[in-house]
Amino acid sequence: MKFRRSSRLVDMTNHLLLHPQHLVSLSYFAEKYDSAKSSISEDLTIIKQTFEQQGIGTLVTIAGAAGGVKFIPLVGLDEAKEVVRELCGVIANPDRLLPGGYLYLTDILGDPRIVNKIGKIFASIYSNRDIDVVMTVATKGIPLAYAVASFLDVPVVIVRHDNRVTEGSTVSINYVSGSTKRIQTMVLSKRSLKEGSNVLIIDDFMKAGGTINGMINILEEFNANLKGIGVLVESEGIEERLVDEYISLVKLTDVDVKEKQIRVSEGNYLTYLSKIEIQDEMGEE
Amino acid sequence: MKFRRSSRLVDMTNHLLLHPQHLVSLSYFAEKYDSAKSSISEDLTIIKQTFEQQGIGTLVTIAGAAGGVKFIPLVGLDEAKEVVRELCGVIANPDRLLPGGYLYLTDILGDPRIVNKIGKIFASIYSNRDIDVVMTVATKGIPLAYAVASFLDVPVVIVRHDNRVTEGSTVSINYVSGSTKRIQTMVLSKRSLKEGSNVLIIDDFMKAGGTINGMINILEEFNANLKGIGVLVESEGIEERLVDEYISLVKLTDVDVKEKQIRVSEGNYLTYLSKIEIQDEMGEE
Repeated sequence: MKFRRSSRLVDMTNHLLLHPQHLVSLSYFAEKYDSAKSSISEDLTIIKQTFEQQGIGTLVTIAGAAGGVKFIPLVGLDEAKEVVRELCGVIANPDRLLPGGYLYLTDILGDPRIVNKIGKIFASIYSNRDIDVVMTVATKGIPLAYAVASFLDVPVVIVRHDNRVTEGSTVSINYVSGSTKRIQTMVLSKRSLKEGSNVLIIDDFMKAGGTINGMINILEEFNANLKGIGVLVESEGIEERLVDEYISLVKLTDVDVKEKQIRVSEGNYLTYLSKIEIQDEMGEE
Repeated sequence: MKFRRSSRLVDMTNHLLLHPQHLVSLSYFAEKYDSAKSSISEDLTIIKQTFEQQGIGTLVTIAGAAGGVKFIPLVGLDEAKEVVRELCGVIANPDRLLPGGYLYLTDILGDPRIVNKIGKIFASIYSNRDIDVVMTVATKGIPLAYAVASFLDVPVVIVRHDNRVTEGSTVSINYVSGSTKRIQTMVLSKRSLKEGSNVLIIDDFMKAGGTINGMINILEEFNANLKGIGVLVESEGIEERLVDEYISLVKLTDVDVKEKQIRVSEGNYLTYLSKIEIQDEMGEE
């Protein structure tokens, strides 16, 4: 069946969006639409321009016989700032305050649209770090981890606090929770992580970083490489942070349970996002 | 900025795919692209045709001042069959067999691409049931629930087995596990589900249905309405099923631990998917 350009553009856009980071050969499109490769190239130029203008991402073209085109989802600085500003506003709502100074974030993490926006920001930041797998710990971090993984087109592995029969044989470690100083256990299914994998750790909340530090310890058991740590909210004013390098979108600067006040500011993500934009520009020259 | 048709098609496709089930007014597009509504209508006709031809879904147009266009993700029968056939093949692999006749599904549930395909099938089936929220139980069902919810554009609520401080006040119920007959507890954050919500329950695995039955009991505590139950894998040969109406993609017909054999067949989803296709066709006449 012959396709007109307009139909090709719609279907190619859908295909590229569904397969981020995935190399699609021009022949694939040429055959699917029964069109000349030169027409496909022109289509891709239009898509690339629109994607870049609209902040959807970019297309990277790889020349040669094994070449093709790859959609890289990217979030522009302005869009990321807007998402984070929105998040800050929502998170600062004093109704979120729970006993013990904890925050209720379940509604935010339960909204796929917000979660996908957050996921795209992290995927943008880590898209050039050769990530093989996104790791998180049950339960709260799971939706964020899947959102990031979808945009990076990699699988998710979930570390658990308990041992379930459905996980098969597992590796378990003990770690010290940073804030409560209690000893806890973490378990990961042996089959779920290949040796030498490049891992991005994603979680919803980081206080002292004990849980994330636990995941780093588990990575060592699998000889896997830590390639990055992304958290939605970090809590400031921690005496001793167990984790050094991480990216946060929102920073909790002050929680006053008595006065029912939550103060938040932007996290450190901007530093990293700006770096990427500069790198990209340099790469294009 | 004026947009050419080709750029509009790319950007509109992206916008519609990102906002399933969401009514977008023609004025929104007309203003964004500084184009006449008649041109936007023509664009939408092209997109609708391509979406339908390619099995991406359909566009529903609502006339009038409050009208607009809505993208409904749909999976065609053939595509659904292919996905399920693939799943059956993967699940029947004897390496999945765990002690006690359990199956290792973690890798399947860890792959966002597979999870999204499954999510789209369930969203297709339930897209006309006015779902307000997707419910699942921690941990394994979470990725599936988010995938379905993304395509339905509704939030997810997660029932837990334990009580966490970050959930705020909760409602908890006791239920009897169908297969082990043990009494277990289920907990749901009070804030997370509004009274009268229409709920779709999604889970990865159903044996006797005790866990799902527990979720149904929790729905009653919230005066919420059960609108459907979707499971990835159901286990056949259960003496007494606690749940009546559900949709499954894969049916486990026989697990022989000694012979290391897993037998699977297609679940009952086809019955429902065919019904929808027929309804749709009738609706168009």
